[in-house]
Amino acid sequence: MHKKLFIPGPVEVLPDVLEKLSTPLIGHRTKEYSELHARVRAKLQELLYTKNKVFLSTSSGTGVMEACVRNCVSGKLLSLICGEFGERWYEIAKSNGKEADALRVDLGKAIRAERVRDALASGRYDAVALTHNETSTGVMNPLAEIGAVLQEFPDVVFMVDAVSSMGGARIEVDRWGVDVCLSSTQKGFGLPPGFAVFSVSEKTLNKAATVPNRGCYFDFLTFNEYDEKNQTPTTPSLPHIFALDYQLDKWFKEGMERRFERHIQMAQACRHWAKERGFALFPEAGYESVTLTTVDNTRGINVGALNTELGKRGFMISAGYGKLKDQTFRIAHTGDLTLYDLKELLGVIDEILGQGKA
Amino acid sequence: MHKKLFIPGPVEVLPDVLEKLSTPLIGHRTKEYSELHARVRAKLQELLYTKNKVFLSTSSGTGVMEACVRNCVSGKLLSLICGEFGERWYEIAKSNGKEADALRVDLGKAIRAERVRDALASGRYDAVALTHNETSTGVMNPLAEIGAVLQEFPDVVFMVDAVSSMGGARIEVDRWGVDVCLSSTQKGFGLPPGFAVFSVSEKTLNKAATVPNRGCYFDFLTFNEYDEKNQTPTTPSLPHIFALDYQLDKWFKEGMERRFERHIQMAQACRHWAKERGFALFPEAGYESVTLTTVDNTRGINVGALNTELGKRGFMISAGYGKLKDQTFRIAHTGDLTLYDLKELLGVIDEILGQGKA
Repeated sequence: MHKKLFIPGPVEVLPDVLEKLSTPLIGHRTKEYSELHARVRAKLQELLYTKNKVFLSTSSGTGVMEACVRNCVSGKLLSLICGEFGERWYEIAKSNGKEADALRVDLGKAIRAERVRDALASGRYDAVALTHNETSTGVMNPLAEIGAVLQEFPDVVFMVDAVSSMGGARIEVDRWGVDVCLSSTQKGFGLPPGFAVFSVSEKTLNKAATVPNRGCYFDFLTFNEYDEKNQTPTTPSLPHIFALDYQLDKWFKEGMERRFERHIQMAQACRHWAKERGFALFPEAGYESVTLTTVDNTRGINVGALNTELGKRGFMISAGYGKLKDQTFRIAHTGDLTLYDLKELLGVIDEILGQGKA
Repeated sequence: MHKKLFIPGPVEVLPDVLEKLSTPLIGHRTKEYSELHARVRAKLQELLYTKNKVFLSTSSGTGVMEACVRNCVSGKLLSLICGEFGERWYEIAKSNGKEADALRVDLGKAIRAERVRDALASGRYDAVALTHNETSTGVMNPLAEIGAVLQEFPDVVFMVDAVSSMGGARIEVDRWGVDVCLSSTQKGFGLPPGFAVFSVSEKTLNKAATVPNRGCYFDFLTFNEYDEKNQTPTTPSLPHIFALDYQLDKWFKEGMERRFERHIQMAQACRHWAKERGFALFPEAGYESVTLTTVDNTRGINVGALNTELGKRGFMISAGYGKLKDQTFRIAHTGDLTLYDLKELLGVIDEILGQGKA
């Protein structure tokens, strides 16, 4: 039986969207492809409220994080860390031989803009990396506020992993001063994994031109060069681009405001349910993610058993991530899932818990 | 109208294979995925006649070329170049800050094993990069012979771009001593672009462990660590893996020998046609590719006009690549195309040329 996915990626994908993956192929150096490319880019710019370039990458989001580090860090990176995905930024920098400092907050807490200002005031950093929505702790960091601080330091490149927020939460790239905003497609986009998109500011392209050893596959300047021909540097995953083109049209038909509002409603319903059932929320109040809820398992239920029972009924949620594996469980409510879908899931969880099966 | 693709990637993909891309998603950290992963790996090992590890990469083939350079080159790379894709190996090395020497032969010529032996005898190199099948010139290099030479130099890592040959031509990884053998899926595999596979020898993994700054996304050791759990390091393109699993079953049903034989028959028919019609073959005799034919446009036909006319009739071939753009044209005959498909195309080309339309 297919399990409806309420995990933080890959998410459930609607049948009509899945079907678009099977579109017959076209050459990636043709006029037909260039039209598709330009169309998708324009829609992504609209989604991100940006006039910046938006590039298409055949990789996961982690690949684009590596791209950021290789293209934007020549001095030292400030890595803002509130969970496992923040740690990833830091590890990527180190594994690429780049200097980096970590600014860590306790798990469950958000990164505060003031702390970022204090760190940048030292003048030690040429780039900052942030996880907008930390999937391990369920914290959504205050991107607009941190972006405002970054705008006080115009020589610093601001790179944001929006993997689990883009498409589910509003991100105003230009107004908030985000230099690189990246996401993969298997979360808020409601598409399968295997593809990533990212916006890049003019300032970032100028910076990249000064950074040696950017490599080939993830070189921002090569992306830019091909993008000017409405192409990608290497053969892209055409199935994902066909589906993305279709999916973005559906979004604009739903209305972006309504899409974000749907995410907020699902998040509120999930938080309300958790508290009503005697659980706590893991993230600090005021910084809970709108795309997933990380529940503090204060009742000590057996999450493995719960997921086994859910599986028999055609659903799947996630255990905690990394250090929080046993202490939390996670319910993603993003992509094309609706309040109805979520309430159905929560009803089934209630039934399983009520029967003492987890 | 859909154009049937006789271009060297992306190739035509059969409807039943395309359909597999739309398989409903599963979690990539589940038992179900691990079973799929192990199954696909075993089939790829069979295809490559190897006991080496085979890894799955969500990238194009170029990404894995970059991976090779970052994981295997700590001293100096010997880049064997007989066309544009050989040049790419060299550029990737340079753009990653690696030392590299180029061994170039004239366009249309193949790399000879003796020249490789002479170069390696200098003791200057710790890795060699080869393009098995050079898509620009239509040359297929003598991989078995070059591999035999490499086995005389056991400290040198032998990295082979088999992007446009794997799945269409026999490659015996273990017997021929290929340390890394890589391909993307949009050519001989008869699948859409957006995914790559590569085999890695034990020797290569040991070497990689000594190379600093391998990065994160393409780190062979991380691939290996996750592969031991039958997983990939980051979220993979599940649609491609579903289709690959299905496609490889179809191949084994066809029979690998028969698949390779079909490619040889198509290549012979295409070469015969070209010569009969007063064209020449661009590659030197004895080294013509079996997956595509690069025709020397000795008749000076207008290839652009030919492709426009072909497009009206639902077909597409390729102009020359890079420096050979106007001097040659290319007909790919690989993936799931049959002799019948090829003869249909050649008949249509005859008709267009006979009418003086190109």
